[in-house]
Amino acid sequence: MTPLSDKLGDLFAQHQPGYALPREFYTSQMIYDHDIAAVWNRNWIWVGHETQIPDPGDYFLFDYGPESLIIVRDREGDIRAHLNVCRHRGSRVCTESSGKARVFVCPYHAWTYELSGALRAGREMGADFDPADWGLRQAQVRLFQGMILVCPSADAPPIDDALAQLAPLTAPFGFENLKVVHTAHYPVPANWKLAVENYLECYHCAPAHQEYARSHTLKSPLQMEALLPAMQKRAAVSGLPTTELNLTGPDAIAPGTDVYYRRYPLFDGYKTGSQSGEPLAPLLGTLTDFDGGATDVSLGILNYMLVYSDHLVGYRFVPRSVQETDIQVVWMVRNDAEEGRDYDPEALTWLWHVTSQDDERIIRHNQAGVNSHFFQPGPLAEMEWAIHDFYNFYRAMTGLPAA
Amino acid sequence: MTPLSDKLGDLFAQHQPGYALPREFYTSQMIYDHDIAAVWNRNWIWVGHETQIPDPGDYFLFDYGPESLIIVRDREGDIRAHLNVCRHRGSRVCTESSGKARVFVCPYHAWTYELSGALRAGREMGADFDPADWGLRQAQVRLFQGMILVCPSADAPPIDDALAQLAPLTAPFGFENLKVVHTAHYPVPANWKLAVENYLECYHCAPAHQEYARSHTLKSPLQMEALLPAMQKRAAVSGLPTTELNLTGPDAIAPGTDVYYRRYPLFDGYKTGSQSGEPLAPLLGTLTDFDGGATDVSLGILNYMLVYSDHLVGYRFVPRSVQETDIQVVWMVRNDAEEGRDYDPEALTWLWHVTSQDDERIIRHNQAGVNSHFFQPGPLAEMEWAIHDFYNFYRAMTGLPAA
Amino acid sequence: MTPLSDKLGDLFAQHQPGYALPREFYTSQMIYDHDIAAVWNRNWIWVGHETQIPDPGDYFLFDYGPESLIIVRDREGDIRAHLNVCRHRGSRVCTESSGKARVFVCPYHAWTYELSGALRAGREMGADFDPADWGLRQAQVRLFQGMILVCPSADAPPIDDALAQLAPLTAPFGFENLKVVHTAHYPVPANWKLAVENYLECYHCAPAHQEYARSHTLKSPLQMEALLPAMQKRAAVSGLPTTELNLTGPDAIAPGTDVYYRRYPLFDGYKTGSQSGEPLAPLLGTLTDFDGGATDVSLGILNYMLVYSDHLVGYRFVPRSVQETDIQVVWMVRNDAEEGRDYDPEALTWLWHVTSQDDERIIRHNQAGVNSHFFQPGPLAEMEWAIHDFYNFYRAMTGLPAA
Repeated sequence: MTPLSDKLGDLFAQHQPGYALPREFYTSQMIYDHDIAAVWNRNWIWVGHETQIPDPGDYFLFDYGPESLIIVRDREGDIRAHLNVCRHRGSRVCTESSGKARVFVCPYHAWTYELSGALRAGREMGADFDPADWGLRQAQVRLFQGMILVCPSADAPPIDDALAQLAPLTAPFGFENLKVVHTAHYPVPANWKLAVENYLECYHCAPAHQEYARSHTLKSPLQMEALLPAMQKRAAVSGLPTTELNLTGPDAIAPGTDVYYRRYPLFDGYKTGSQSGEPLAPLLGTLTDFDGGATDVSLGILNYMLVYSDHLVGYRFVPRSVQETDIQVVWMVRNDAEEGRDYDPEALTWLWHVTSQDDERIIRHNQAGVNSHFFQPGPLAEMEWAIHDFYNFYRAMTGLPAA
Repeated sequence: MTPLSDKLGDLFAQHQPGYALPREFYTSQMIYDHDIAAVWNRNWIWVGHETQIPDPGDYFLFDYGPESLIIVRDREGDIRAHLNVCRHRGSRVCTESSGKARVFVCPYHAWTYELSGALRAGREMGADFDPADWGLRQAQVRLFQGMILVCPSADAPPIDDALAQLAPLTAPFGFENLKVVHTAHYPVPANWKLAVENYLECYHCAPAHQEYARSHTLKSPLQMEALLPAMQKRAAVSGLPTTELNLTGPDAIAPGTDVYYRRYPLFDGYKTGSQSGEPLAPLLGTLTDFDGGATDVSLGILNYMLVYSDHLVGYRFVPRSVQETDIQVVWMVRNDAEEGRDYDPEALTWLWHVTSQDDERIIRHNQAGVNSHFFQPGPLAEMEWAIHDFYNFYRAMTGLPAA
Repeated sequence: MTPLSDKLGDLFAQHQPGYALPREFYTSQMIYDHDIAAVWNRNWIWVGHETQIPDPGDYFLFDYGPESLIIVRDREGDIRAHLNVCRHRGSRVCTESSGKARVFVCPYHAWTYELSGALRAGREMGADFDPADWGLRQAQVRLFQGMILVCPSADAPPIDDALAQLAPLTAPFGFENLKVVHTAHYPVPANWKLAVENYLECYHCAPAHQEYARSHTLKSPLQMEALLPAMQKRAAVSGLPTTELNLTGPDAIAPGTDVYYRRYPLFDGYKTGSQSGEPLAPLLGTLTDFDGGATDVSLGILNYMLVYSDHLVGYRFVPRSVQETDIQVVWMVRNDAEEGRDYDPEALTWLWHVTSQDDERIIRHNQAGVNSHFFQPGPLAEMEWAIHDFYNFYRAMTGLPAA
């Protein structure tokens, strides 16, 4: 760790607060390896929803960088996350992306693991071998209203208090009763941090997202403020709290526990994030009407959600290599909604499909320019304040104080 | 820079003068990054001809390694070269390879640059922000008889005096009145220096270039000398100076200002570099007849031209990665020549298409062998003297004296 | 070498005897470069059989990592191995994978080498140039009963004594009179050491190789012991020695001279490694009958053979890059056997084709898991003892004592 910390220290010393990070943070293999070890392996990652694995033995894999996790419901009905690495010689234990298992049998030497991760037996390992020592490594798991968060490391950020404060705010949406109806992948040849930074600011929304900018006020703080009071009145009527919760950046309980909730108005005529402005699916949870708003939610520093009155869109920016990132977009509606009758998948996914295509393009061009030896980080705009917080989180993950 | 310089110093200490460079110069990512920063970013690169951008707003991009340049004619009619890196967060500003623009609008946050590179305005950047500080970085530009040379760094090699000496020699060709009629790309899986070295010597011409060797005497110094006087007489009659100008290697005014002019005879029966020996296009400039010669021209250390009486063939060896190089060959004829009537593109490009295909093959095999741990640089032949000069230039770019 | 040795020393210090190697041995480019230089370039590699090049001038290339060797029969009828790197500027000298040559002419500058590797002449290299100094570098060559072994380095492991002890054991198979009838390549995205480790243990045979496990007892030491005496009786009758020769690991004469011979029984009903149990080709050498056995042979540390009564299957695990390995499987039968009449290629290759496909899959999953930052080497099973010896060989190649 020491040589990397020195190197990182030198690089951060070149970072001017209020500006983008220096080039090497986006180009260096060493930084990428660091990011997996220090950031991704030590933070909460939103991997899915418990409705994806309703019964014991149901599982799915979640992969990022060189890592693979088995998310499984065990015999007791609890959700667990195992590192998908055999304790013998390191093979992937599970190679199907999802399914139903009674046990996990390593395809190499048949070491057999219970759904709980315990090693049933190590075949012909001799008398001194105690299977109890060789269960699959466990990632930490938190369920938040049905949403599954995992943290591979034992020293997970202490996110429970923050989630407890968030819980009453999201309660009316009934997250527990959602289901995933579509997941799209937008691979972009760029470092994952450029994809996160892209999500964290709406300074680019007006110039880069024509469709989004037509319905969403976030691109324009002044217009948003003007429309806010009316929306808040409608939100109260429909059963939604309008409190803002901002436990991020300097207000986070600890690095990586960032939690955020803010509802903001759409433009008049838009009930939800649809092309026409009309509803896309049945009202979520206990809502009684459309309030013409949308809620930004953060669950930790790596997971983002946008909650309309009738659907939820979730985001992850999954690293694949130093300059390959998989932008994953997940659409959810209430669990009892029926495709065809209650929602049209094409209409539902339209906005964030076209918007993600825009993002793929601009993030790609961003990386191409950052690769230049002549790139020097420029000043962040006021609307990019969340990027500044993200950098401070990133500093904290390497043991540095906020800038 | 210090660690790299040490490493480079160690590597150059292993280099025996009169021999090829050690293996790592062709295999190391660190050396490649150095080559972009110390060689390509600090030397004159021939990017095209001003007829490609006749009117204000006309532009094209020139890319190499991780770099991108916007070559544009500004409102005053001057040609400028901007680094294609937004001063805000580094996005490519221009993403079309050529076109006509009134301004350059960054696709990310719409920072808008004038054709001159000046930042028109930084949208919502606050009161303290002065756009005058944030224009696009400028590359140096030199026009030599219509040919556009650019150097991304401020400390460009002082090439003006050398070009002034070259000007009267190339004047009869009327470079100003040429146009590009074809550009071909020959990607080769090899380090760019192996491609340059290949161009710098004709020791390989006889064994490797059957078609070229049939018409060009450069492969055989003795035969060339024998045919030289007769050609020089014809050149004088046709209006071409026969003076040789060699401001290269130890005779260069400064590293990277290398300029070269030498006309040498083709074999009897060849008026130009054609398959039949017959003309391919109308006589260039003020020439009154074919003299059966060809002129080697260097404009700096990275740009090479071969000028026949009726057309010009230009070469660049553009790095893409440590072992990927794009050999770019550009064919030019006089601006008023008309395709079909005055020249046949297939006949015009025949010789250097087949010759470049040969070169791609032999450079590829060269890299494959150099990759061996058993490769030890062997002795250069007398006909490879220019490679020795190239190595000294390369040493100079890293601050080392000539070997 | 010093920095690498330090680094290797640190890595080996993390290696716990009886456990797999740490992650970086399978992921690091530096380790890969080391493996080529210290292991592959300094050990005996089985490249083929002399029947592949019966006449003077016959040659084939053998490539691994960045290296290429020309295996050729010279004018005197001797087999030689030349490094395929021109002594001038390093080009590959020979670019066809096999053929018949009178001399080897470098495609770049026509330096011309005799079949013996001697440089005939260096064209226009001046008076001081002595061609005798610039012949192709020679790899060491050993013929073992027609099998060609080469070692690129001068300090080849002293394998002669070990081969002399092996010779009477393999004599009845008549290796001299074999021919290659099929070679298959199974590229696997994994480090070459994981492929070797896979070959060195049969702990995985029962769970991973359904077809192999049906006929071969190696997967089950107890069953093998039970069937051994009967097979040994049949072997003696058929003319095969049943002696075991184990000059490997701590019993090797020197690192890299490992030689091994052991015949073990197939299950009842199997005369050879066929799907039906029935013969696949004429009996090898002087054998008089099928004994229902198979012999494991090692020729050095990198080359493995499985000898049935009627055919031989050879294995190499050829590195291509840090996580790309070409598993090469070679099928041989007696030289006078005729395709169609004496053997059916599809039946002959069936078992080790399906088994190698299994291996590709499990080695691939092994590498994927080892790439995880959470991978920690686990304990080896008793049946994996040969891996432990392989690690000690690997330590010896870097100058470290056995663990």
